[in-house]
Amino acid sequence: MTSRREELATNYFNCSERERAVFEAGIKLGTIYHQFVGTPVAAANVEILERAIEDGVRVQPFVKDAKVRISREALRRKKDEFDYQTLTGNMLIVELTVAVGGTTVVAGMDFKDDLHYPLMYVKEIIP
Amino acid sequence: MTSRREELATNYFNCSERERAVFEAGIKLGTIYHQFVGTPVAAANVEILERAIEDGVRVQPFVKDAKVRISREALRRKKDEFDYQTLTGNMLIVELTVAVGGTTVVAGMDFKDDLHYPLMYVKEIIP
Amino acid sequence: MTSRREELATNYFNCSERERAVFEAGIKLGTIYHQFVGTPVAAANVEILERAIEDGVRVQPFVKDAKVRISREALRRKKDEFDYQTLTGNMLIVELTVAVGGTTVVAGMDFKDDLHYPLMYVKEIIP
Amino acid sequence: MTSRREELATNYFNCSERERAVFEAGIKLGTIYHQFVGTPVAAANVEILERAIEDGVRVQPFVKDAKVRISREALRRKKDEFDYQTLTGNMLIVELTVAVGGTTVVAGMDFKDDLHYPLMYVKEIIP
Repeated sequence: MTSRREELATNYFNCSERERAVFEAGIKLGTIYHQFVGTPVAAANVEILERAIEDGVRVQPFVKDAKVRISREALRRKKDEFDYQTLTGNMLIVELTVAVGGTTVVAGMDFKDDLHYPLMYVKEIIP
Repeated sequence: MTSRREELATNYFNCSERERAVFEAGIKLGTIYHQFVGTPVAAANVEILERAIEDGVRVQPFVKDAKVRISREALRRKKDEFDYQTLTGNMLIVELTVAVGGTTVVAGMDFKDDLHYPLMYVKEIIP
Repeated sequence: MTSRREELATNYFNCSERERAVFEAGIKLGTIYHQFVGTPVAAANVEILERAIEDGVRVQPFVKDAKVRISREALRRKKDEFDYQTLTGNMLIVELTVAVGGTTVVAGMDFKDDLHYPLMYVKEIIP
Repeated sequence: MTSRREELATNYFNCSERERAVFEAGIKLGTIYHQFVGTPVAAANVEILERAIEDGVRVQPFVKDAKVRISREALRRKKDEFDYQTLTGNMLIVELTVAVGGTTVVAGMDFKDDLHYPLMYVKEIIP
């Protein structure tokens, strides 16, 4: 069922439903990166931070599911007061599912060794 | 001319060039919102902040142009030490142009009165 | 017990231990505001977001305790796809305890009606 | 001259003017780090970004001056679409001057080789 507000919003888009669905997926990946990069992270709070990012994405329009992992490689047991880090894009592994009308998009972000870069990309559009 | 890294990146995408172009536009709008919302803003720094957001977007992949306006309605002359604000999504008026291969996308974000919401949307896909 | 790195860091400070303790408290309040303002928030994720902010602060140097509340007044049950908000400074109620050497500082941030402003302030320095 | 609002704010503080001045300096350094880390940065926009950070800090309460440098070491000429970076704390060199009443504080943030860490610290309190 489509809300009244969603009907009004749709009028502003000059593109197909498929195109809008990937556009919405792109917005959410940009959101995750730039909202949470810089957050203090250590072994003690990495799990709650993963869950908070997932749940923050899930309350946004059109998001059906979100899975967020923060790479543990860079996190160590705290040895002194200064031994913590702030979250970087390279640590993030994200998969999210967005649905607009009858179209579902699965998109991801993760570090690609061949690119030396955390790539945001479209994994699948259904149907 | 396509770089070697761009060729490698393209392999990860399971979608058309048009779909990828709107995806990239979505990423950039999510980036602007969540990177800069919260920044201190007043009459004294609003112009430099507009330019810094524009130039920050322009260094990102596939961005051809970006125009950023911050609504002056909410900004007043500073009356005392506490009289400044932090940037909100409702103040932002953005138009950006993204090109992937032969496809160009014009996308925008601005506050829509009928939605009571700063909408991110696809204005045009060329060709 | 003081770590080697903390000894080195102390050399850079030209102030008393009390002054350093309030300085560290100020850093953490600025961090909370500017890291998390803009995060998507709704009734569904407000509790996990409170905990994630608390735990993010707790992993930072010198923090002994942190309590974070997000005002529920502004949060409603989700009625349509667009019905969510992003966190603002006015919604935040924070109390944190920082200790440097033998000095403990309790500092807070919350919206003050008489100031129309979310104030960051020093509640107590012990001893 | 002290504003009415500043008089009201002062009532909430349980500390000396010197202590409040360093507290305010700490807030601003936390703000800079967590607001701007993650911003896209390349040779093309590094100067405007430095100025935008400076001017963003200057509109905040009690700030008298701010100098911000972003280390050029990590920035290269753009070779392909993906060749840009996002700002990290290690790149930032900040000095700011804060005044509360008759007290002036000079505080800084910059990467310290002996700490392997971008330290925020109090350089001087006057008088």
